[in-house]
Formats: sequence, C-alpha cells, structure tokens
Amino acid sequence: MPNPIFILNGPNLNRLGVREPEIYGAETLDDIRAACADRAMAFGFNIEFRQTNHEGQLVDWVQEAADAAAALVINPAAYGHTSVALHDALKLVDAPIVEVHLSNPAARESFRRRNYVTRVADGTVSGFGATSYVLGVEAACRFAMKRSD
Amino acid sequence: MPNPIFILNGPNLNRLGVREPEIYGAETLDDIRAACADRAMAFGFNIEFRQTNHEGQLVDWVQEAADAAAALVINPAAYGHTSVALHDALKLVDAPIVEVHLSNPAARESFRRRNYVTRVADGTVSGFGATSYVLGVEAACRFAMKRSD
Amino acid sequence: MPNPIFILNGPNLNRLGVREPEIYGAETLDDIRAACADRAMAFGFNIEFRQTNHEGQLVDWVQEAADAAAALVINPAAYGHTSVALHDALKLVDAPIVEVHLSNPAARESFRRRNYVTRVADGTVSGFGATSYVLGVEAACRFAMKRSD
Amino acid sequence: MPNPIFILNGPNLNRLGVREPEIYGAETLDDIRAACADRAMAFGFNIEFRQTNHEGQLVDWVQEAADAAAALVINPAAYGHTSVALHDALKLVDAPIVEVHLSNPAARESFRRRNYVTRVADGTVSGFGATSYVLGVEAACRFAMKRSD
Amino acid sequence: MPNPIFILNGPNLNRLGVREPEIYGAETLDDIRAACADRAMAFGFNIEFRQTNHEGQLVDWVQEAADAAAALVINPAAYGHTSVALHDALKLVDAPIVEVHLSNPAARESFRRRNYVTRVADGTVSGFGATSYVLGVEAACRFAMKRSD
Amino acid sequence: MPNPIFILNGPNLNRLGVREPEIYGAETLDDIRAACADRAMAFGFNIEFRQTNHEGQLVDWVQEAADAAAALVINPAAYGHTSVALHDALKLVDAPIVEVHLSNPAARESFRRRNYVTRVADGTVSGFGATSYVLGVEAACRFAMKRSD
Amino acid sequence: MPNPIFILNGPNLNRLGVREPEIYGAETLDDIRAACADRAMAFGFNIEFRQTNHEGQLVDWVQEAADAAAALVINPAAYGHTSVALHDALKLVDAPIVEVHLSNPAARESFRRRNYVTRVADGTVSGFGATSYVLGVEAACRFAMKRSD
Amino acid sequence: MPNPIFILNGPNLNRLGVREPEIYGAETLDDIRAACADRAMAFGFNIEFRQTNHEGQLVDWVQEAADAAAALVINPAAYGHTSVALHDALKLVDAPIVEVHLSNPAARESFRRRNYVTRVADGTVSGFGATSYVLGVEAACRFAMKRSD
Amino acid sequence: MPNPIFILNGPNLNRLGVREPEIYGAETLDDIRAACADRAMAFGFNIEFRQTNHEGQLVDWVQEAADAAAALVINPAAYGHTSVALHDALKLVDAPIVEVHLSNPAARESFRRRNYVTRVADGTVSGFGATSYVLGVEAACRFAMKRSD
Amino acid sequence: MPNPIFILNGPNLNRLGVREPEIYGAETLDDIRAACADRAMAFGFNIEFRQTNHEGQLVDWVQEAADAAAALVINPAAYGHTSVALHDALKLVDAPIVEVHLSNPAARESFRRRNYVTRVADGTVSGFGATSYVLGVEAACRFAMKRSD
Amino acid sequence: MPNPIFILNGPNLNRLGVREPEIYGAETLDDIRAACADRAMAFGFNIEFRQTNHEGQLVDWVQEAADAAAALVINPAAYGHTSVALHDALKLVDAPIVEVHLSNPAARESFRRRNYVTRVADGTVSGFGATSYVLGVEAACRFAMKRSD
Amino acid sequence: MPNPIFILNGPNLNRLGVREPEIYGAETLDDIRAACADRAMAFGFNIEFRQTNHEGQLVDWVQEAADAAAALVINPAAYGHTSVALHDALKLVDAPIVEVHLSNPAARESFRRRNYVTRVADGTVSGFGATSYVLGVEAACRFAMKRSD
Repeated sequence: MPNPIFILNGPNLNRLGVREPEIYGAETLDDIRAACADRAMAFGFNIEFRQTNHEGQLVDWVQEAADAAAALVINPAAYGHTSVALHDALKLVDAPIVEVHLSNPAARESFRRRNYVTRVADGTVSGFGATSYVLGVEAACRFAMKRSD
Repeated sequence: MPNPIFILNGPNLNRLGVREPEIYGAETLDDIRAACADRAMAFGFNIEFRQTNHEGQLVDWVQEAADAAAALVINPAAYGHTSVALHDALKLVDAPIVEVHLSNPAARESFRRRNYVTRVADGTVSGFGATSYVLGVEAACRFAMKRSD
Repeated sequence: MPNPIFILNGPNLNRLGVREPEIYGAETLDDIRAACADRAMAFGFNIEFRQTNHEGQLVDWVQEAADAAAALVINPAAYGHTSVALHDALKLVDAPIVEVHLSNPAARESFRRRNYVTRVADGTVSGFGATSYVLGVEAACRFAMKRSD
Repeated sequence: MPNPIFILNGPNLNRLGVREPEIYGAETLDDIRAACADRAMAFGFNIEFRQTNHEGQLVDWVQEAADAAAALVINPAAYGHTSVALHDALKLVDAPIVEVHLSNPAARESFRRRNYVTRVADGTVSGFGATSYVLGVEAACRFAMKRSD
Repeated sequence: MPNPIFILNGPNLNRLGVREPEIYGAETLDDIRAACADRAMAFGFNIEFRQTNHEGQLVDWVQEAADAAAALVINPAAYGHTSVALHDALKLVDAPIVEVHLSNPAARESFRRRNYVTRVADGTVSGFGATSYVLGVEAACRFAMKRSD
Repeated sequence: MPNPIFILNGPNLNRLGVREPEIYGAETLDDIRAACADRAMAFGFNIEFRQTNHEGQLVDWVQEAADAAAALVINPAAYGHTSVALHDALKLVDAPIVEVHLSNPAARESFRRRNYVTRVADGTVSGFGATSYVLGVEAACRFAMKRSD
Repeated sequence: MPNPIFILNGPNLNRLGVREPEIYGAETLDDIRAACADRAMAFGFNIEFRQTNHEGQLVDWVQEAADAAAALVINPAAYGHTSVALHDALKLVDAPIVEVHLSNPAARESFRRRNYVTRVADGTVSGFGATSYVLGVEAACRFAMKRSD
Repeated sequence: MPNPIFILNGPNLNRLGVREPEIYGAETLDDIRAACADRAMAFGFNIEFRQTNHEGQLVDWVQEAADAAAALVINPAAYGHTSVALHDALKLVDAPIVEVHLSNPAARESFRRRNYVTRVADGTVSGFGATSYVLGVEAACRFAMKRSD
Repeated sequence: MPNPIFILNGPNLNRLGVREPEIYGAETLDDIRAACADRAMAFGFNIEFRQTNHEGQLVDWVQEAADAAAALVINPAAYGHTSVALHDALKLVDAPIVEVHLSNPAARESFRRRNYVTRVADGTVSGFGATSYVLGVEAACRFAMKRSD
Repeated sequence: MPNPIFILNGPNLNRLGVREPEIYGAETLDDIRAACADRAMAFGFNIEFRQTNHEGQLVDWVQEAADAAAALVINPAAYGHTSVALHDALKLVDAPIVEVHLSNPAARESFRRRNYVTRVADGTVSGFGATSYVLGVEAACRFAMKRSD
Repeated sequence: MPNPIFILNGPNLNRLGVREPEIYGAETLDDIRAACADRAMAFGFNIEFRQTNHEGQLVDWVQEAADAAAALVINPAAYGHTSVALHDALKLVDAPIVEVHLSNPAARESFRRRNYVTRVADGTVSGFGATSYVLGVEAACRFAMKRSD
Repeated sequence: MPNPIFILNGPNLNRLGVREPEIYGAETLDDIRAACADRAMAFGFNIEFRQTNHEGQLVDWVQEAADAAAALVINPAAYGHTSVALHDALKLVDAPIVEVHLSNPAARESFRRRNYVTRVADGTVSGFGATSYVLGVEAACRFAMKRSD
C-alpha cells in the first residue's frame, strides 16, 4: 500500500458550513473529507485528513508529511497569508504539494494577495468550493504516481 | 441568566504590571478582571476572562465565543497586528465585538498601524489603561442588550 | 466649580441624523449633547459643546480649551484626516484629550486611515455611535480628576 | 446537444513544446486539445478550442463565448497580466469562467503577480501543466451542469 | 464641407446595452451615434463613428484622424488604462482631442485611475452616459471652429 | 419655479483672468457666471453662483445646496485635492453633482491627481476653460430634469 | 514710500512662547514683529505683519499681497504641509516670496517633509528661531530692491 | 546565403519624420531601412525590415524570426513598455536580440522606465536617432557571426 | 552557580541537517547544542537549550527567561520575520539578548528583510552556520558577566 | 582671536559662474568667498573657505572643523543627497552647523528631496544665490557668539 | 588636430578579465582601450582613456573634459547608480556624452535600475561587452563631427 | 606564514571614542586593533588593519585584499548604506568576507536598513561594540582555515 495523501486544513475550516456561506458554501469539512477519500481511492490512495487552528501544529504536521506522505494537499486558510514558518516547513517536503482554496482569494481583501504557500506549492486549485479539494486530490495523486514510476 | 461577556486577552498581557509600566501602567491583569466583572455586573452580565500567548488558542476561544457569548471584548495585543486567522475567526461571530487597548497604538511603532481586528470589530476603546477595558465592557453590554431586545 | 469639559465637533456633524444614517444612526447632535451633559454631570463637570465646519475655528477653540478646559473631547470628523494645524494646536493642550468617532474609521475608505488627531490624543473611543461620546466623556472626566488630585 | 465549452488560448501558446520546456513541459497545444476533448466528452460536452497572439481577437472570441458557450476555460497567458480589455470582456460573460495556467505564476517574475483575469474568473487551476487544462475543463463542466439544472 | 469629427470607440463598447447596465445604461452604441450626429450637425460637422476591440486598429485610426479629422472624440475604454501606443499616436494629432467616458472612472476599480489618454487629451467629459458623448462632441466642434478661425 | 442650480467656486477663482492665463485663459469669473446663467435659462433654471477662498464656507454652502438646489455644479479648485470635509458634505447631497475644471488636472502637478470631489460627483467636465462650466451646467440641468420626472 | 513687506503667519503662531518652547524658543510673536520691523527699516521698508489660524484668511491675505506688497515673507506653519489653496494663491504673486520656519522641519515628523509653499517660494530660511524671520526679511528686502532697479 | 537580420518596428514608427521631430529627428523609416541595409550588407547579411501598429502582429513576427532570423533587431516603441506578450515571444528566440531606440527613454515620461523588451534583449542602443539602428545592426551582425563560428 | 544562558530555537530547526543543506550545512541541532554548552562552560555558564515550532511556546519561554536567564540567545527562524508577539515578549527581558542565524538573511528572499527580533536584540551574529551560535553564546556570556559586575 | 568659521563647499561648486547660470547666477566661488569674509568680519570672525569634489575630503574637513571651528557653514551640493558618511561626520561636530544652497532644491529634480545634511544641520538658508551664503554666515556667527557666552 | 574623445571608466573596471567573467567577458581594459583607439582613429580622433575607483576623481575628469574633449564616452560602473555629483558634473559638459555598459543592467540587481548618468547622456550602448565601447566611440565621433560642422 | 587577515574600516571610525559614545562606547580604534591582533594571533594569523574616510580608497584596498588576504573583515560604516562601488569590489574577493558593526543598525535611522555590503558578506556580527570585531575576526580565521584545508 502506498503512503497516504496528507490533506491538511488551517484555521477556521472546522467551522465550514457556518462561516460566511455566501462565500464558502454550505458543505462541512466532513463532506469534503468524504469526497476527497473517494477521489483518492480511485487512484489507489488513502488519505490522512486533519484540521487545526494552530500554526505550530500545522508546521508539525507538514514535517510529519515530509516523512510519510505520498503527496500533500493543503488549504492553509489564513496562515497562507502570514506564516513564513509554514513556508519553511513546506520547503522540507520532497513530495508534491498542492494548494487548494474554497474561494478565489483574488476577489477578496487585498491582504489575501500575499501567500507564502503558493510560492512553494507545485500547483493550486481555487474557487470551486469543495470541488477545489477533489480536483486538488486528483492532481496530487497524478503527481505522486508519476514520481513513483 | 444571559450568556456571559467573553473577555479575551492576547500575548504578554499575563505580564502586566511588569512590562513597560511607563506605557501600560502598574495594574495587573487580575486588577482588570475585577474591574470588568464589576462593570458587567452593573448591566446584569457575568464575564468569562482569559489570557493566552498562543494565536491558535485565541482562535479556538473566539470560535467558542461565537457559540456562547453575549458579546466579545478582545485585547488582541500583538496578534491584532499579524493574525489573519484571528480576523477570520472574528468574522464568524454574530455577537458584538469590542476591541480594547491599554495604550494608544497610533503613538507607537509603525508596524502597529495595521490591525486585522479593528477591521471586524464593532468599535474600539484605546489609550486609557485599565479604563479602556471598563468602558469597552460597558459598550459590549449596551450592544448586547440592544440586540436581545 | 472645576473648569468645564470641552466637547468640540468638526465638519458636517451638524447634519447628524440626516447624513448616511446607515453609518451614523438617527440621533442628532443635540441628542448627543444631552447625553454628554448627563454623564459629565455624574462626575461633577459641566460641558462646553460646540460644532463648526471651519478648520480655523476648530483651531481657535482648541487654543481656548488649552486655557480653560479640564479636559478636551474632540470628534474632528474629516479634519482628523487632513489637518496638521489641528494637530499642532492639540499639542498646545496640557489637559487630557479624548478623541471620539461615531463609526469605525478602519471599516471605511482608505484615506480615513491617516489621522493627525489620534497621534496626539491620550485615548480614542470609536464605533459606538452616540455611546462613543458618552464613554469618551467618562474617560475625560476620570483623567481630569486624576490630574487634579 | 448543449452549447460547447469554449477553451481560449492567449499569445505564444501555439509554440508550446518549443518554449522553455523546463517550465511548460514538452506537450504541444494539440495534445492538450485532445485531452480536453476527452474530459469534456465524459461530461457530455463538445469543446471549441482556439489560440491567438492578438489581444483584440481574444476579446472578440470572449464576446462570442458570451453568446454561445456553456462555460469558458481561458489560458490568457501574457494578456492576463496586462489586458483590461480582456477583463472587461469577461465581465460580459454570464457562463462560468475557469482560468488555467500551465505553470505557477507565483514562482515566476514579479510582473506576473498582477492578473486581470483572475479577478473575474470563478476559479483557477495552475501549475499542473496539461493537467491544469483537464482539471479546469472538469470544473467548467460541473459548473455548467449545475447552472443548467 | 469641413473635415469630419472622428469619434472612435474602444473595446467592448459594441456590447453597450448588454454590459453592466447598472453602470453604463441601456442605450446602444447606435443610439449614441445618432445623438452625436445630431449635435455635430448643429455645428455644421459630419461625423466618422467607429468601434474596434483591437488596440492596433485604434492606433491606425488615430493616425488616419491625424490627417483627416477636424477634431477627435475618443472613448478609449480599457485601452485608456493600458495603451502607451495609443498615447503616442494621439500625440501625433494636431486637431483637438476630447476624451469621453460613459461612467465616472474615479468611482470604479483602482486600476482605472491611470489613463494614458487623459494626459494628451485637451479635455474630458465623463459620468453622464450618452450625454458625455453629446457634450464632448459640442466641445470638439467649438474647439475645431476656433482653430479654423 | 424650480430650485436653482448652485454653482460653487473654490479658492483663487476670484482672481481668474489674472492668474496664469496661459493655463486658465483671460475670462473672468463674471464672464463665466453670465455664460452659465444663459445655458441654465435655456433649460428653465436660475443659478446661484458663488466663490470663496474658505474651505469651511464651501462646506456650509454645500449643506445649503443639499436643502435648496436642483443640482450642484462645483469647481472645488485646490480643495478638491485636499478636503475630506468637502467630500463628506457632498455625500449629504441628493441632487446631481457635476464637477468642472477649467484646465485638465492630469496634465499638471502630480499632487492634483488625488481628488476627493471626483469620487462623489456624478460626472466631470474638464479642460475646456469657461466651456467646461457651460457644458457642466447643461449636464446638471438634464440630470435635474430627469429626476424631477 | 515703497510698498510694505508683507509678513504672514499661519496657525498656532499666536501661541508662540507657550507652545513647545524646547523647539520654538521663548520669544513671542510680538518680539518677532519688532525684530522684523527693525531689519526692514534698515532697508527702507515698512512691514505689514499678521497672523491667522484660518487657511482661507491666509489665501485672502496672499491675494492682497499680490496687489500691494514689495515682497512677501510667509511662515505657513501647518498649512505649508497641507494647503494646495495656499500654493495656488502664492503662484499669483509676482513679488519675491520668502518662506521662514522657526525650527528645522527635516528634524521633525515625516508628514512635515511635504511642503506646498517651498515649491513656489524663491527661497527659504529655517531653523534659527526668530533669527529666521530677520534673515528672511533681509532676503526679501534685497530681492525687492533688485526688482525695483 | 545566411539567414537575414530581422528588423521589427512597433507602433507609430510609420509616422517617423512627422511625429515630434524635436525628439526623433526628420528622417523617415525608409531612410532608416536603407541605412540598415547598407551596414548589414557590409557584414554579408540581408535584412527583413517591417513595421506594424499591432501588438499581436509583432508577436507573430517575432515567432517567425525565431525560426528564420540570424539575429533580431527590434524597436518595440510603446509596446516595450506594456507588452508581456512580446516579452514572452522574445524568450522563444535563440538568435541574438538587439533593442534600439531613437531617443533616450530615461529622459522622457516616467512610464517609459519599465521595459519588458530590455529584460530579454542581449543589448540595447538608444538615443542616437537613426544611428541607433545602424549601430544596433552592427552589434546584431557581430553577435550572429560569432554564434555561427 | 549563576543563572543559565537560555538558547531558544524557532520553527523547523529540529529538522536541521535535513533541510536545504546547501544553505544551512549538515550539522544537527544536537551538534549545535553541544558546541554551545562547551563555549558557555568556558565562561562558567550552563545552558538551557530548547526548540519549538509554536510561536506561543516561544513567547512562554521568553517570559520564563525574563525571570531565570543570565542571558538569552535566540534563533527565531521564521518567527523573527512575522511575530510581533515575540518582539513584545523580548521587550520584557532585562537580560542581554543575542540573535543568531545560521545563514545570512540578506542573501535570501525579500520577505526575510523585516525582522522584529533584530529591533530588540542587543546584537546579532549571522551567516556562520553553527559558528554563529558559538560566537553568539560568547557574546551573551560576556554581556552577562559585565552586567553582574 | 576666536576660532574661524569653516565654510565648506562640495562638488562642482568650483565651476560656479560656468554651470547652469539660469539656476545659480553668474557669481564665482571667489566672489562668494569675499562676501562671506566681509559678513563674518562684521561679527569678529575669520573664515576658512574650501571646496572639493571628493566626498572623503569633505568628511576629513568636517572632522577638522569639529576640532577647530567656531561654526560650520556647508554647501554639500550633490553629496547632501547621497552621503551618509557626511551625515555621520557632521554628527561629530558640536559647533553650530548651517547648511546653505544657492538654489531652491524643492523646485528641482525629485532626487534632491532627500538630504542627509539637512537632518543634522541647525538651520538652512536656500534659494538666494550668493546671498544664501551671506545670511548663513550671519546665522553661524550669531549661533557661535551665543554659545561662547 | 581636433580635441580628443575622453573615455572615462569608473570603479572596479581595472579588474576587468578577473571580475565575474560570465557577465563581463575575459577582455581586459587595455584590450578595450586599443579597440577604442582604432575606431576613433577611423574618424580622425585621438582618445584620452582613464580609469579610477574614486568618485571625486571622476568628477574632476569630467570637469576637465568639459574644457578639452570633443566628446565624452563614460562607463560610470557603480557610480552611475549612486552619484549625483557625477550627474551634476556631466550637466556642465556641452560636448556629446555617450554612456556605455559592458553588460545589460536591466538583467541584474534591482538597485542598478536607477542611473543618474543615463538621465544626462545623449545616448547609451549596453550589453555588448567590449563592443559596447567601440559602438559608443563611433556614436561619439559622429556626434562630435556633426557639431563641429 | 599565511596571508594576513585584512581589517578595513570606513568613514569616521578614526573618531571612535569621541563620536556618540552612548552608541559606540569609549574604546578607540587603536584599542580595537589590539584586540583584533590578539584574537587573530590565537589562530596563527597576522592582521592588516586600516581606516579611511574615502570610498575610493576603500575600493582600492578591497581590490588589494582580493590578491593578498586570507580573509577580509570590514566595517564599512556609512559606505555600507550607499556604496555600490564597494559592493562590486567585494564581489571580486574569493576570500571569506565578514562584516562587523559596533552598534545594531536595525535600532537606528531607517536609511541604515539598506546595506550593500551585507548582501555580499559571508556573515555579519553587529551590536557588541569592540567585541563585534573580535568575534568577527574569529569567524574570519575559522573560515580561512577551513578553506586552506
């Protein structure tokens, strides 16, 4: 069995379905987890799906993924805009890194223009709600399979 | 009994009375807690008063306040200047949000000009030392009472 | 009898109740004057309450307050964003200076971010409508009493 | 038969496979067209796939898509960074708009940070080479099907 | 018969009446053409009225106007914000240049603040919908008549 | 008889005909008043034409216009670049607001690029000397008539 | 008798000797008036010495000086940093213009770096307290005498 | 016979001799073509000399040069300042690229400071009028000969 | 026995020897701990050596050091660039503060130019790999000894 | 006999009378030396008058003045805009420092706005040609006499 | 015999052939001197070829060239980016000024974008290694001959 | 005997002990020279210790060090902030480069934030007064020994 796809979620995503539904939609994080698992399974991967509000926890998990993930899908939420620590942790990761966003950051506040994760991700999917995750998982799986060739 | 007023304190406020007394005064955080409780009580509210040095903990507590607070008084201290995560958590809160500061940020270092909390607070009281908290609590109580009308 | 608390109001505040009620509320400046007088009276102070659309008039009054006020509460409105003359006049004042705003400037146009009055005020109350004035008057009274100790 | 998915390609993409293969890979635009057609077909859509080096031509085609496309997938290439005309044309389009990029613009020259298309796209897929197109087509098909419900 | 007044229209204006009617109104470009012809006729001028989505075409036409127009009225639309080529072409024109806008650019996105055409136009009329054109044509006719004195 | 069209002039315009004639032309403010009256009369309006060097006076008059004008034509001169007070007063006005300039600000000093009046005006006419006023009055009359329909 | 030297003083200078004596010294404005009169007399000139807190009044006086002064010495104080109206009025003046400052603006707050008066003054004397005025008057007298040659 | 030297000219250069002769001189583009042909011939090269006002056309020709030119001399005119598309096309070219300008852009408007062509050119000759072309052709020939060694 | 030298390490330093060895070298954090202990011992000090990925933990430890350290050596890693909370905690510390970096931040990404720790450190050693720590410990010991004189 | 007044001149001032006479006038540096000597003599001071094109030489002389001058008058010319070394040397000087300029830097290129000398000078005289020096010498003498009281 | 062509070289060019050969090539400054002499001789000019690491020396030589050169070719190297003194000296020169660079500054560090020499040079040749000098000498000779006509 | 360690000192360091002792301490440059010699001797190196106020002299010496130094320790003082020439010279040096500062530049004026030497130094020691030199010499010696292995 290959290493799992790590899917890491940053702050406030545990409130999905509650928070500003006109921007993020009504789906909960559990709905998204299920959809991700399905798509990953189609490519023969399990997923490791987690959420935290703590920057340091996110850094710990990225370090764990550096050792144990076939690929890393990350929705850094707010920490994408402020965390150099996360940026530095991601540079430790040799596995493919896919960044996902529920909404389109370019259409929101100007302070969301700066993103430290985008700089080190292999690719990004944003703006499609839960579908961003599903497509991101597919991209991660394809990358992971290509590398293991 | 109505929901309590949450009063959340950010990093280094546990050192109050020690830290730069020429800026913040000699009162400790316990002194402030007592003064806040008195003023809240005058409006028929209890308070829930906490402090942490951890950004993620502050986010967790704000989420808790979103479910259980009549109003939220927050002194984000340094995290007001850097935490988009806190900003996003506060946008989840329907209850009134009052930001308080012991000193006047405009008279200090330029990096204190940017404040992510101010953008989402209903109002702000700053520069009056412990009195900032007391007045902020009064504003929070009045807001909370008006909404519950 | 102690010196009065000066409460000075800048441009367009004479139109309160007319102007953008979704931002400023329906109270008129006379309503605010009455509420301020009540709160000041509770601390044993009279108030001197004035409004003008003229920057120079505001400077004249601040100079008058430098000689005759126990404390100064000022809502500079637009002149807070543009008047260095007002800034310089306020630096002449030894009495406590409290700045008040009806709304939260941080949530409005970017040109309201710069404020010359905030730099020289002892503290600020903003965002609570007429309650900003009332709390600001209390802060001013407390400051004034502490200094006269 | 539903309206087709328009897939529009901006300047220099006709040289794909020639141009900087270390960034864009060795696939040609015809390879991408075929992969897009397959994925669209899986959702029951035909595609209309075009390329031009002319900004005005791109504007003309976007206007055509406004009348005749189920969804629009666009790789604006360089014009994404400079064309307000393209931006304005895209605002005419009611159908879903998906922006795709072969590479990750955030990892390239700073003048690629500004993008007028991203502001008006519903979502973006970037960094996965030809796979960006395929995932973008899937997103477009899903959006188009949801709207036609 | 004097030389005609050239009235040149930039990208997306062919979609007038369709595009964002809350900003631009419901009139079509043909309606505007007719209104312009009337006002010009009142001053004894014919008009030459054209539209294109192509920057290069606009440059070609401005060069033609340099040889054959009594005055030039131009609504550069998006190219006003991005086209130095158009700026350079307009500097070739000795005839009066009047810039017109349907809406008020100052009330829109910040990237519309920069305008290369405004720098070289004799004057500007903006914000009055189709009336902007009519007033602009009158200004152009008056300028043209004064020069031919 | 309908309410008059207010035409308000800012600082130094009383020196017209003296000041930098190569930029502003030789016409005096009285010449302009007469031309405005004529054009307004053609639409059935009287005018109220005033000039002041005092920002506060201009604010007072705009407040008066908010109560008594069919439309407001304003040449704010220097105060357009610096007066947030004027901006705030104009937001009080429900009647149409037309901004006029004798010269083209875009062709002058860079500090004339910022204009607080343009942001709140319905439209602008600039660069045509006294003709800017005449066309601006026509626009104001047309707006006023449309609203009174 | 030649025209007098106008010496105009901006806001808060009436408080000289009171205001921040560590920056401005203990001399009053009357002391300065006397010293200026002496130096001017040595060159055969009378002085016209005034002070106001009102920007508009300053503009009125500059216009008066344009008609009646041999030379103009101006300490614009705060209005030098904010008043485009004053800048425009000074451009009306053909007589020599000398700007004086009691202190050195370069050693103070950054918002004192921008000065609209300096741009149109013939020369500047700053940093020497009352002596700045005396030297400025001498410069003005010399300029005035040279022009009347 | 070796491949020709491509010499491509951007917008408005067809008007040479007409446009702002105090900046560009009185020579026409045909004069320049002849001078270039002479210098190229001295090194044994033919030239392919073209002009267009269309950005897309310029991109098409640069792609053609990538396949068929010994070296590329380009005067991008206005498109040098705005065209990322041109920049991207030039990166496709393996042959030497020489940028030429008739005048010195550093002595003109500030928006001419940014130049996307300069970043990818091997070298630049500017400020010598038609001589810029002649020297640029020599540089191109020398580069081309060195590579074919 | 004197108080120990606290040596605090920020995020991702636990991965030393793994992470980007071309920048940081192959030594692990344990190697560095040993070298630091040796050098401190030569001056008669023990060390307290810790690492965390959590900003709040770092703040807690700095507060602990404020009570119990002879001197503080800190490698804030990424948090130096983003943490105002850390800055504020360090201002609580009376003991000497020495900042160390393995590499030279000035030679890396531009977002590493801003550093909140450098502003409050007594001194900095950077660029020498593990030797930065050793020299920093010596500096800390010397400072500590001088203060205890 | 008191220490002399040092008068130091920066680069290109040896060419005075040759260089851009429309800005600097026709007087030579020798004419200025004579005028300075006269005015200094009136206050009982000798002068030490020098010029150099070398920044390091200017620094050497300022250090010499720190030991031997009653006051220092300096026209740093271009080095005022670029030399931090000169700034640092001037901070070594306890004697009064007067900066003089022949012309008004505010009316020239924008890179002349930054001036390292102005920050550390006691006062400045600019814009009066040779008279700037004479007035500056008087200011220096008065300062020097006051200090020696 | 006409005046010579001055060819002045700034700092570190004496190390040519040693310094970063991948940017500057392996030719020494003596090789360049010889090539320049040849090309100048073809036009009937001698050359005066010098190098210095001292900014002041460069200024002295430019002043000498102002009196004695037929034309001035200058490679200011680093001083082009920092020396206002050099800029001011070059404005003293009536003879033609040609700036040369071995490499293309636009492709190097961002601090090389600002160049004070380019602003005052008649033209520039950059990016062609030693050939930049040779072409620059030809341009200088042609300019010099045209002026002496 | 190995090559010596060059220790080069920039402007105003010859005045050490005189200049702003609250920032730099009371030690003279000779004290520092002695301390450096001791530490270098402990590693078997001699030192070559020099100071100059001239930027060009510093460049000359750096070139000399490129040929003759085992390592280079440099305190560029003010020239670190302004000298691109020094930057370029240091890039010529293959030996290790250590930058030292007596004080912490981050705690001083903002114009000391830019430093051209830091970009090319291997490492930096700042803020420890004379101890900065001693530690810097140790780092230099260690680097030099490692390279000569």
